[in-house]
Amino acid sequence: MRLSQIAREFDLELIGEDKEIEGLEALQKAGPKELSFLDNPKYLGHLKSTNAAAVIIKEEFLQELGDGVSALISDEPYVTLAHISKLFAKPPYQKEGKEPKIAQSATIAPNVSIGYGSEIAEQVIIMPGVVIGDNVRIGEGSIIYPNVTIYRDCVIGKNCIIHAGTVIGSDGYGFAHTRDGRHIKIYQNGNVIIEDDVEIGANCTIDRAVFGSTVIKRGTKLDNLIQIAHNCEIGENVLMASQVGISGSSKLGRNVVMGGQSGTAGHLEIGDFAVIAARGGVTKSIPGKKTYAGFPLMEHKQWLKLQGLLMRLLKRQK
Amino acid sequence: MRLSQIAREFDLELIGEDKEIEGLEALQKAGPKELSFLDNPKYLGHLKSTNAAAVIIKEEFLQELGDGVSALISDEPYVTLAHISKLFAKPPYQKEGKEPKIAQSATIAPNVSIGYGSEIAEQVIIMPGVVIGDNVRIGEGSIIYPNVTIYRDCVIGKNCIIHAGTVIGSDGYGFAHTRDGRHIKIYQNGNVIIEDDVEIGANCTIDRAVFGSTVIKRGTKLDNLIQIAHNCEIGENVLMASQVGISGSSKLGRNVVMGGQSGTAGHLEIGDFAVIAARGGVTKSIPGKKTYAGFPLMEHKQWLKLQGLLMRLLKRQK
Amino acid sequence: MRLSQIAREFDLELIGEDKEIEGLEALQKAGPKELSFLDNPKYLGHLKSTNAAAVIIKEEFLQELGDGVSALISDEPYVTLAHISKLFAKPPYQKEGKEPKIAQSATIAPNVSIGYGSEIAEQVIIMPGVVIGDNVRIGEGSIIYPNVTIYRDCVIGKNCIIHAGTVIGSDGYGFAHTRDGRHIKIYQNGNVIIEDDVEIGANCTIDRAVFGSTVIKRGTKLDNLIQIAHNCEIGENVLMASQVGISGSSKLGRNVVMGGQSGTAGHLEIGDFAVIAARGGVTKSIPGKKTYAGFPLMEHKQWLKLQGLLMRLLKRQK
Repeated sequence: MRLSQIAREFDLELIGEDKEIEGLEALQKAGPKELSFLDNPKYLGHLKSTNAAAVIIKEEFLQELGDGVSALISDEPYVTLAHISKLFAKPPYQKEGKEPKIAQSATIAPNVSIGYGSEIAEQVIIMPGVVIGDNVRIGEGSIIYPNVTIYRDCVIGKNCIIHAGTVIGSDGYGFAHTRDGRHIKIYQNGNVIIEDDVEIGANCTIDRAVFGSTVIKRGTKLDNLIQIAHNCEIGENVLMASQVGISGSSKLGRNVVMGGQSGTAGHLEIGDFAVIAARGGVTKSIPGKKTYAGFPLMEHKQWLKLQGLLMRLLKRQK
Repeated sequence: MRLSQIAREFDLELIGEDKEIEGLEALQKAGPKELSFLDNPKYLGHLKSTNAAAVIIKEEFLQELGDGVSALISDEPYVTLAHISKLFAKPPYQKEGKEPKIAQSATIAPNVSIGYGSEIAEQVIIMPGVVIGDNVRIGEGSIIYPNVTIYRDCVIGKNCIIHAGTVIGSDGYGFAHTRDGRHIKIYQNGNVIIEDDVEIGANCTIDRAVFGSTVIKRGTKLDNLIQIAHNCEIGENVLMASQVGISGSSKLGRNVVMGGQSGTAGHLEIGDFAVIAARGGVTKSIPGKKTYAGFPLMEHKQWLKLQGLLMRLLKRQK
Repeated sequence: MRLSQIAREFDLELIGEDKEIEGLEALQKAGPKELSFLDNPKYLGHLKSTNAAAVIIKEEFLQELGDGVSALISDEPYVTLAHISKLFAKPPYQKEGKEPKIAQSATIAPNVSIGYGSEIAEQVIIMPGVVIGDNVRIGEGSIIYPNVTIYRDCVIGKNCIIHAGTVIGSDGYGFAHTRDGRHIKIYQNGNVIIEDDVEIGANCTIDRAVFGSTVIKRGTKLDNLIQIAHNCEIGENVLMASQVGISGSSKLGRNVVMGGQSGTAGHLEIGDFAVIAARGGVTKSIPGKKTYAGFPLMEHKQWLKLQGLLMRLLKRQK
């Protein structure tokens, strides 16, 4: 799609060369066929060095733009991005396409749907009620239990087990907010990649990335009713007990352990081998190889001291 | 159904005129074809003014009853209501009925079930594994992702997006408790109404009302694994992050924001533009336009002070 | 399977008589056809009295073994158990078997899958999208709402109601951890037993036992999005509000009430008629007939005092 066409569609001013745009990406990752945006002035530094074809920006930042990068002028760049994202959204459901490729030793139960262009490897078992979108790949020996949904473009590794009712690749929760309080959907055009030997419990939800991929690395084991938000990266051999929630763009190192009903805020990092006790709420990046608890989070031994202190205060006042 | 027939079935005394009853309703909302009940003496004031055809009450409250209102006498009115509610329950699954009306431009995938009397509007997309009960209406342009279940009588507006595995219209959690500790189901004969432009994430649960409707107003966006209990009213343009739980009959104003894993008790109101931080637990009604946190809930700045105070106490004692 | 065959497969030393093994079980429950294990020295006392055919143990504990019990020697008995458990796992999906027995008055909707050897009793209603594994029994008058999954070998009692999207019998979350940080699946060869008159809300997850059964006793009512882990025993007439999580092997007495978003650690007992307020986190066994709150858990009146104390401290410092 041409920049000029986008500009016309949303009544935006185009500054610089008209170019062909193939998708949307964050400033730092965008390439010469991609459109990006700058809304938060905190990221102004990235404007000079971006490789994007063009950037949606406020007029006042035009002079910060690198050479040869075009601009679409908007006084609400994030809202504009949201509107434009719809143009690049893939269809949620296609009525025709390339027949899926299913290996001969795969078992496909009745009442299963497999989308166009998908590939199911040898020894895979897909049970009744499973719905697999277009262009999904499922690796050798994986078992998909009943009523699982895997949205389009997702990738499941080898020897994975996905339990019943789990949803992989649903849209990340991303909206731009207008001044009058409406929320404009940012179409989530990325995917989910699940590496080999991952087991995911029942009724979990793993959201697709807005751009790029939500990733769960090899050997990780999730219990039931867990939420992994868009653009997270979950390290190798991570363990999560039931009802954990990981917010968007957070990154867990290898062998992190999350206790039941614990959670994290978004955009943070948890170091390798960190342990979060049940109900722990991680609100900022933390180093690995330690045990944490509480909300706000602290080291587990601090949390135990705090509980002791509170019990003493309570006894004293009686 | 005649009052006399209900009285006979459950061995209750009927006081006053025998009338035709078409359904059950709360005291304040009941009309002249409806049966209501009074169990909690707190609501005694509503007895005089009710428009109900009849009320299930303890004998001692007979003299408080308005003119022309009949009574069914029970010493456990709520338990009696529960038993009677079964008589008015619609069948969970019908084997015959009026063919559903599906607009020509709607896309209905294979392995979809659509109940009798349901109406699917233009441009709707219904993906594989979706089950829609009897008498459901889905508005123009809405997208229903795989393995969603919509129970009978629910209404989905225009341009809604419902992600995979979500359940709309399941029975509210309502039971009357007998003196020997059993729980008698109160059949949930209401429905769920979802207005236009609502997006609901994956594996959410939105329960139908016991009487009347659970309502989610236009423009509201829910993340994954969220619970909305029976008879809630969620205002316009509300945002809820993952794993939020809203208890029965609570009412959220417009543009309320609920952080991840937050929740509310039942029967309370949250004012317009209130923000509840992650993990916040709302236990009573709160005014809008403020930010809250903690459990028990307090203003967010108070919560920050409290955490600072606790950290100082902890340091001092070392 | 012969012990010698298992020993050969995993390169283990077999001490004592070669025997035929039919399954795996915990030390105290194992019978003369079963293989057990000892990893945690805490349970050394059970070694003398076990009726198991054989036990996987470290060499140093050989002399504690009862007469006539064989041994498989491993320096990581739990990891070895995990590897062996795969040999006894039943197939997740069978392509042939005995036709299911469906009573004449049962209603089976379209798009339903019922596994080999399963039995569906009179008056049962099974709605579209339900998937029932092999060898499942569903008792008279039970209603299974759409898109429910019931894994193989589970038992549902009479007059139960299972709401949409719920998963019964998914694998418990059980792994043995290797020294290099990998997690070896312990195949969950038990089942789930749900007694009569139980109602389970939408999108709940009830895991199958590793050995034996996860049990939900008669009259219990669960709300939505609840997690019951493997080997739990939930007493009669228990009530659980939405988003509760019960960890593995915990045992709740009769008429226990769990408030919304509350939870428990594993391997504990809650006495009859205990009430856990919303968000309460049970970390050790507690007596019944009391009301508890908080995390860590305390009596509810203590918790109220603690909150009052904190509010006073906060006011004083301003």
